[in-house]
Amino acid sequence: MGVRNSAGGGAEDPEDLAEVERAAAARLPGDVRDFIAGGSGDEVTLAANRAALDDVALLPRVLAGVQAADTSTSLVGTAATLPVAVAPMGYQCLVHPDGEVAAAAAAGAAGVPFTVGTLSSRSVEEIAETGASLWFQLYWLRDRGLVAELVARAEAAGCRALVITVDVPVMGRRLRDVRNGFTLPRTVRAVHLADGPSSAHEPRQVGSGVAQHTSAVFDPAFGWRDLEWLRARTRLPLVVKGVLDPRDATRCVELGASAVVVSNHGGRQLDGAAPSAVALPRVVDAVAGAAEVLFDSGVRSGVDVLRALALGATGVLLGRPILWGLAVGGERGAARVLELLRTEFAQALLLAGCADVDAARGLATAQAAPTRRGAP
Amino acid sequence: MGVRNSAGGGAEDPEDLAEVERAAAARLPGDVRDFIAGGSGDEVTLAANRAALDDVALLPRVLAGVQAADTSTSLVGTAATLPVAVAPMGYQCLVHPDGEVAAAAAAGAAGVPFTVGTLSSRSVEEIAETGASLWFQLYWLRDRGLVAELVARAEAAGCRALVITVDVPVMGRRLRDVRNGFTLPRTVRAVHLADGPSSAHEPRQVGSGVAQHTSAVFDPAFGWRDLEWLRARTRLPLVVKGVLDPRDATRCVELGASAVVVSNHGGRQLDGAAPSAVALPRVVDAVAGAAEVLFDSGVRSGVDVLRALALGATGVLLGRPILWGLAVGGERGAARVLELLRTEFAQALLLAGCADVDAARGLATAQAAPTRRGAP
Amino acid sequence: MGVRNSAGGGAEDPEDLAEVERAAAARLPGDVRDFIAGGSGDEVTLAANRAALDDVALLPRVLAGVQAADTSTSLVGTAATLPVAVAPMGYQCLVHPDGEVAAAAAAGAAGVPFTVGTLSSRSVEEIAETGASLWFQLYWLRDRGLVAELVARAEAAGCRALVITVDVPVMGRRLRDVRNGFTLPRTVRAVHLADGPSSAHEPRQVGSGVAQHTSAVFDPAFGWRDLEWLRARTRLPLVVKGVLDPRDATRCVELGASAVVVSNHGGRQLDGAAPSAVALPRVVDAVAGAAEVLFDSGVRSGVDVLRALALGATGVLLGRPILWGLAVGGERGAARVLELLRTEFAQALLLAGCADVDAARGLATAQAAPTRRGAP
Amino acid sequence: MGVRNSAGGGAEDPEDLAEVERAAAARLPGDVRDFIAGGSGDEVTLAANRAALDDVALLPRVLAGVQAADTSTSLVGTAATLPVAVAPMGYQCLVHPDGEVAAAAAAGAAGVPFTVGTLSSRSVEEIAETGASLWFQLYWLRDRGLVAELVARAEAAGCRALVITVDVPVMGRRLRDVRNGFTLPRTVRAVHLADGPSSAHEPRQVGSGVAQHTSAVFDPAFGWRDLEWLRARTRLPLVVKGVLDPRDATRCVELGASAVVVSNHGGRQLDGAAPSAVALPRVVDAVAGAAEVLFDSGVRSGVDVLRALALGATGVLLGRPILWGLAVGGERGAARVLELLRTEFAQALLLAGCADVDAARGLATAQAAPTRRGAP
Ligand SMILES: Cc1cc2nc3c(=O)[nH]c(=O)nc-3n(C[C@H](O)[C@H](O)[C@H](O)COP(=O)(O)O)c2cc1C
Ligand SMILES: Cc1cc2nc3c(=O)[nH]c(=O)nc-3n(C[C@H](O)[C@H](O)[C@H](O)COP(=O)(O)O)c2cc1C
Ligand SMILES: Cc1cc2nc3c(=O)[nH]c(=O)nc-3n(C[C@H](O)[C@H](O)[C@H](O)COP(=O)(O)O)c2cc1C
Ligand SMILES: Cc1cc2nc3c(=O)[nH]c(=O)nc-3n(C[C@H](O)[C@H](O)[C@H](O)COP(=O)(O)O)c2cc1C
Repeated sequence: MGVRNSAGGGAEDPEDLAEVERAAAARLPGDVRDFIAGGSGDEVTLAANRAALDDVALLPRVLAGVQAADTSTSLVGTAATLPVAVAPMGYQCLVHPDGEVAAAAAAGAAGVPFTVGTLSSRSVEEIAETGASLWFQLYWLRDRGLVAELVARAEAAGCRALVITVDVPVMGRRLRDVRNGFTLPRTVRAVHLADGPSSAHEPRQVGSGVAQHTSAVFDPAFGWRDLEWLRARTRLPLVVKGVLDPRDATRCVELGASAVVVSNHGGRQLDGAAPSAVALPRVVDAVAGAAEVLFDSGVRSGVDVLRALALGATGVLLGRPILWGLAVGGERGAARVLELLRTEFAQALLLAGCADVDAARGLATAQAAPTRRGAP
Repeated sequence: MGVRNSAGGGAEDPEDLAEVERAAAARLPGDVRDFIAGGSGDEVTLAANRAALDDVALLPRVLAGVQAADTSTSLVGTAATLPVAVAPMGYQCLVHPDGEVAAAAAAGAAGVPFTVGTLSSRSVEEIAETGASLWFQLYWLRDRGLVAELVARAEAAGCRALVITVDVPVMGRRLRDVRNGFTLPRTVRAVHLADGPSSAHEPRQVGSGVAQHTSAVFDPAFGWRDLEWLRARTRLPLVVKGVLDPRDATRCVELGASAVVVSNHGGRQLDGAAPSAVALPRVVDAVAGAAEVLFDSGVRSGVDVLRALALGATGVLLGRPILWGLAVGGERGAARVLELLRTEFAQALLLAGCADVDAARGLATAQAAPTRRGAP
Repeated sequence: MGVRNSAGGGAEDPEDLAEVERAAAARLPGDVRDFIAGGSGDEVTLAANRAALDDVALLPRVLAGVQAADTSTSLVGTAATLPVAVAPMGYQCLVHPDGEVAAAAAAGAAGVPFTVGTLSSRSVEEIAETGASLWFQLYWLRDRGLVAELVARAEAAGCRALVITVDVPVMGRRLRDVRNGFTLPRTVRAVHLADGPSSAHEPRQVGSGVAQHTSAVFDPAFGWRDLEWLRARTRLPLVVKGVLDPRDATRCVELGASAVVVSNHGGRQLDGAAPSAVALPRVVDAVAGAAEVLFDSGVRSGVDVLRALALGATGVLLGRPILWGLAVGGERGAARVLELLRTEFAQALLLAGCADVDAARGLATAQAAPTRRGAP
Repeated sequence: MGVRNSAGGGAEDPEDLAEVERAAAARLPGDVRDFIAGGSGDEVTLAANRAALDDVALLPRVLAGVQAADTSTSLVGTAATLPVAVAPMGYQCLVHPDGEVAAAAAAGAAGVPFTVGTLSSRSVEEIAETGASLWFQLYWLRDRGLVAELVARAEAAGCRALVITVDVPVMGRRLRDVRNGFTLPRTVRAVHLADGPSSAHEPRQVGSGVAQHTSAVFDPAFGWRDLEWLRARTRLPLVVKGVLDPRDATRCVELGASAVVVSNHGGRQLDGAAPSAVALPRVVDAVAGAAEVLFDSGVRSGVDVLRALALGATGVLLGRPILWGLAVGGERGAARVLELLRTEFAQALLLAGCADVDAARGLATAQAAPTRRGAP
């Protein structure tokens, strides 16, 4: 792995994910950029996600005698060259014609799992042809037959884990989309759900077409019994995505989940929800090693990956940055994002004196405010 | 109830309360806008109210199996379709000719209680004709006979609770009004107090006419014995509005109050008073279920309602946003404000995995700063 | 006392101290404005003083049955109509030809003690003619005979307390003055120290003439034994000004001080010193009622006076605002500052449900961050 | 030592270090300025270093009877007129042709130790001719023979301590340098490592030449056993620089280190590392007097030195400000920086009532947020 040699790469090559974000923003139509960047409500949680990560102050170790940090690990039984998987994100053809296929190819080449979404704009079978390690993300649909069919298709396509998203009984009120009257272009569809266009495609002045569509097909009444049904239905490890309260995390584990993802959906669901990094340590304590604890919402650098590990996470899901990469350069762009993240993370490990991913979980973190000393 | 379907509504329709605020600000004369928006002193408490609400980080629940959240509840014995009542606010004809009648009609249609103020610019009898569930807000007047008369009129008009405001021995020093030399136009009067114009109408260069008038008619010496007198005087449930110290809350309950309102009057009375959201949890602890605990000062969205419930409130009073709605479109404008709040709150409940209002009170909240982990 | 009736006063009348500050800033020469406004070093403490006061969140009491709050009190045995004394500030003729005489006259008329400084530009005897209640502030001078002489003059002039300033072994590094090459005009002199001009008057390019002069006449070696000497030397109550560490406060009391002033000299001495409002509660705890605890540094409103009392102070010293008033209108300007403060404080007491100054000391304060609730 | 007499010094003389920084920034080429000023990654740690220092609120002592504070001390056995040593910083000829020789001469004249870096652009023998008290900073090189040779040269040249830097297994990702394609001019070389130009000199479009070179010569696998080897190899006191986790500090001491430096390398290594001032108190507690605890990263004034001492440090290393001084005026500029620091520190000691450096370590510090008082 080693640390990124700063040579190599033309002058126009981005040097951190923020640069990729800016390049993507310059390239995408305003409403698509907003669809990706936006959060729900006042976007308080969206902003708090970043602030909470920046507030995690790491205490690196020294003299660890590490020649080159080993960034590889296993996530829910899937080997990964980084403690990172690509988060499920719908409709990736919005930002690049190759959509999920390009992103998965980049993930596959980089050796990190790629999560195919229920709302994928390319089929799981097509994506599987990239040879990437796949996970399949499930939404709880009103059409239970379709749920069963998707599980079967995911298994048949060789997916290695089922990620069930539990924080979207309905879609959050994303005001940018509502104001933009955001709809999908005819060329971008949730191919796992239907063959033709849906309500997500109907032109409108205001209101989010995507929210409209979601509302029609998702079943908000998804409950613990349904999770048990699902657990019984598949041999794949089950990952429950969107957990913030430790009590829920414990129950997921009791019902057989292999992992929970501490996530607020990138600030896109309940505005006002705790920043992921604030919720993480208590979930880790509650789970107490009985399952893996993944983390997402706000990860923008290799240091953020290290921060999550130091707070006790097993690994992270990478969300928006993959879409920025896709937007800028399709597979090559997504690959560049993962390459940057690897460079940063490998270096962060080394600078923190961690020989490997496990060592990172033993790092201590500090409060920002200096402890009071002296008398009285 | 369900979640707001984002379709429907012309392009000019506001999508959150902040939009209504901006529209109202564009429409109102400067001194009226200032009278509504302003706080007292340096407006430290006014600003802190919002900051404290934004700092409440919610831990939503998942897999609750909720088809559609039930937003209905009961507040001090009054059925309500939301855990929300309209706060008492004087002189509503300032922002729209129909004033309180329009606002009450909107509240009635929305199924939330409306509080008629002592300083109402329309009479409680007129307002009662809207058919809305009414509460009557009482100020402690120097003219004790008038107090008794107002209680009797409120009862006769079918009001279902008496809200006695205890944080206005005198009016706070609202510098915007003082500098604007704010007075009431002849057409806007406190109809419960007198037939003709008052000192609030006398033209002036500086100083607040409204404060001047208040000072003339309110009795600052209002005390615990007076509260007992009032408690004995009416069968209506008594709501004590403007309590921040837990010791006072306990005493209110001991003296027979059905509810207290944790409020700093929207930052309009004692500048430097604690933000309502900071004071709330300790009042809830002190009251310990022996009475209802309402909340106001800064509520601007359905998420804020959820935040207040999570901190232990029974429900909230909605203040300024109703005036913004009235200013923008009379009854229809106020109705739109309540509709937005319902949409937001219903969705917030669902996204927090709460089947109903009671469930919301079981939500946990988190500190913003991540807890320290690791050794030593 | 009552609450300020907002009528009365021409349109140009200031309505809060910030307005007086702006008016003074517009009127004073830049270097004099800087001399007054400035702090030492990076002015971190100067800014922190205000932030810490704004962070004090008060929990007002209600239903206290207070007709009109009684703002009067006694400070170190001197009756005062407010829990306020004018802080010692040198060279007041810099901002107005009448200097200390005008300020003392305003204080006398307002019924608050005025502190005559060692560096006064008018003599204690002249000032005494105003009839104001006077305190005398002492610096520890290299010329011990002069110290004794000043104590004798103060006693003879009828001063009622001796305020000994302990936070100026040397003058803080006030970079504004250093860069302005600040010196005194010939007309402004420390009349208690010498008859003619001093090194504070020598023209210079850079460096503070005032600091230079201070360095020549103050004895930095002032110690506990000297305090004992002073204590034995006079019958006047002794007030030790500039204490932040509770250990020092305790020792002052043991050696017979009647009061300590928790102060960082308005951010003008040790930059990096704790904000006064942060240090105050622990000094109050340490002193435990055995002496009075006064407070200064940052008081700008009646609410600030209430904040200090709620944190346990006996009263406050008012600093810069008096100079702003003087600059704007001599005695009348200083009087207006005190009148505003009285209006604000009387109202703040009433709004906090405090019948008098003692009641204010029983107010609770809250942390800004909401306490965590719920499980786990 | 005494307190700086503000007279003396032409108008163009800087009055604090920030002024020197501005002057240097105006004079240096952009890429050199960036090389010095920059941090790694998002520069979160760089900014946090300052914020954490500003948050240290000191509680000065009074009446200490100090005529003139004695600023002298001993650091790792080296006498110093201030609790300050010049931090090791490579390539000082970048900012001034005389480079390390000038800086060391200034340090020598000021009576503070100067640390010669492994990456010095002037040889330790040349530098030794200045007569300054020298420490030698060692990087762990792939060429172990060279390490041994450097230790021997340092000893022979009369260096009094060996500072072994442990937070640079590889160089942090400093994006400014990467984007500037920063390389060394031919005239500036790491003279201890080679005679001719290195990869640090190869022209490039992007990527840091300095990082490239470091990567080639440093051995990231530096571990505890190597430290033991080094400890056995020299009689000089060993100072381990770059420790943040108290567990590592303890181990350093167990292995015979005379001191640790709590440092995040000025925010240049692991971005996200805790601010030095946050990490310091816990290291001090862990070391518990068994070794000295030095501090760096963000020191910009004499007050900062006092803050570090109050948090328990033995002394501080001064980094970037020395380079600013060098850039502005060679030896004279560096001397002016040290002179300013002395003036500020001597005054800060006096204003804090500390007779000497030891007394400063007994100062208490306070939390910024006022403690809650009152009931309940
Ligand atoms: C455009 C977009 C689409 C998304 N679609 C899905 C989805 O279909 N299923 C899902 O579970 N999460 C979805 N997410 C949430 C991500 O899986 C992930 O939780 C989130 O992006 C993490 O926050 P970050 O992007 O700020 O890192 C989506 C996020 C974005 C930005
Ligand atoms: C214009 C205006 C008039 C008000 N009049 C009254 C009143 O007559 N009686 C009362 O108890 N509260 C009154 N209030 C306070 C409200 O009942 C409520 O406590 C406050 O508005 C809550 O703060 P918010 O508006 O920021 O949500 C008034 C508030 C405003 C803004
Ligand atoms: C211009 C000026 C001169 C002062 N002179 C003295 C003085 O001679 N003796 C003294 O004890 N304090 C002096 N002080 C400090 C004040 O007594 C008081 O502690 C400080 O002003 C309080 O801070 P504030 O002005 O921010 O309220 C002076 C302050 C100022 C602003
Ligand atoms: C330009 C520059 C070069 C540096 N070179 C070295 C070095 O060669 N060895 C080392 O241990 N530290 C080096 N440091 C780090 C300093 O020793 C010190 O830890 C840091 O500058 C402290 O932060 P400050 O500059 O913000 O005070 C360097 C720092 C800078 C700014």
